[in-house]
Amino acid sequence: MGTHLEILDTSECFRLLESAAIGRVGVTVSALPEVLPVYYVMVDGDILFRTGAGTKLDAAARKAVVAFEVDGADTTTRSGWSVLVVGTSEEVTDPDHAVRALGLLPDGWVPGEHQRIVRLTPRRISGRRIVP
Amino acid sequence: MGTHLEILDTSECFRLLESAAIGRVGVTVSALPEVLPVYYVMVDGDILFRTGAGTKLDAAARKAVVAFEVDGADTTTRSGWSVLVVGTSEEVTDPDHAVRALGLLPDGWVPGEHQRIVRLTPRRISGRRIVP
Repeated sequence: MGTHLEILDTSECFRLLESAAIGRVGVTVSALPEVLPVYYVMVDGDILFRTGAGTKLDAAARKAVVAFEVDGADTTTRSGWSVLVVGTSEEVTDPDHAVRALGLLPDGWVPGEHQRIVRLTPRRISGRRIVP
Repeated sequence: MGTHLEILDTSECFRLLESAAIGRVGVTVSALPEVLPVYYVMVDGDILFRTGAGTKLDAAARKAVVAFEVDGADTTTRSGWSVLVVGTSEEVTDPDHAVRALGLLPDGWVPGEHQRIVRLTPRRISGRRIVP
């Protein structure tokens, strides 16, 4: 109560995406949803993250549509924001791009998730902010 | 590098679920994945959160399988944990249960998302921790 909702425009969504470091990837695996945290970076408007073999890489390999969510909340003021991206993912296989991306990206969320890079190209982006 | 991965047992996953306040719901809407943040509480092993009309409630109404993810990270030590729950969701329609749940739950992430309660019953739960 006493809060209101702001719909964020695309440029503000991108600014918030640039400001965060951890996002959650939503993929559908055998018709079931999964949500997995990743460290990521933005490069030329795309979202890059590391992964190893498993659901996220499998989704990338078949150029699946995935969701990507980033949020920030202040539980004291009960304010917060969230950005949802939907787009296709693919593995970065070009060596130059992969090496550049590996240099930009921190280690994966899971140790060992180092070698493979997934690029998520946003097709749809939306965001909202709750203002006290 | 210099970190290792621990697979968490079910009781530790539940303890972590009890310790957090914000989770992300992963649903499939028209064959596309979406990930949305929610404030939640645990009641008798179920995950309860508020919602209004929209994707999360629609998923609940058709007793869809949804994913629910909670995580915590310490970017300084590069340690973190995440818990993934997969289960069926349904709207809480029994007035007594709904009123009790409304008393336990903080306001929704989005203002106006107050009236409806979704209960997610875990079917599968898994968690991992990265230890520096």
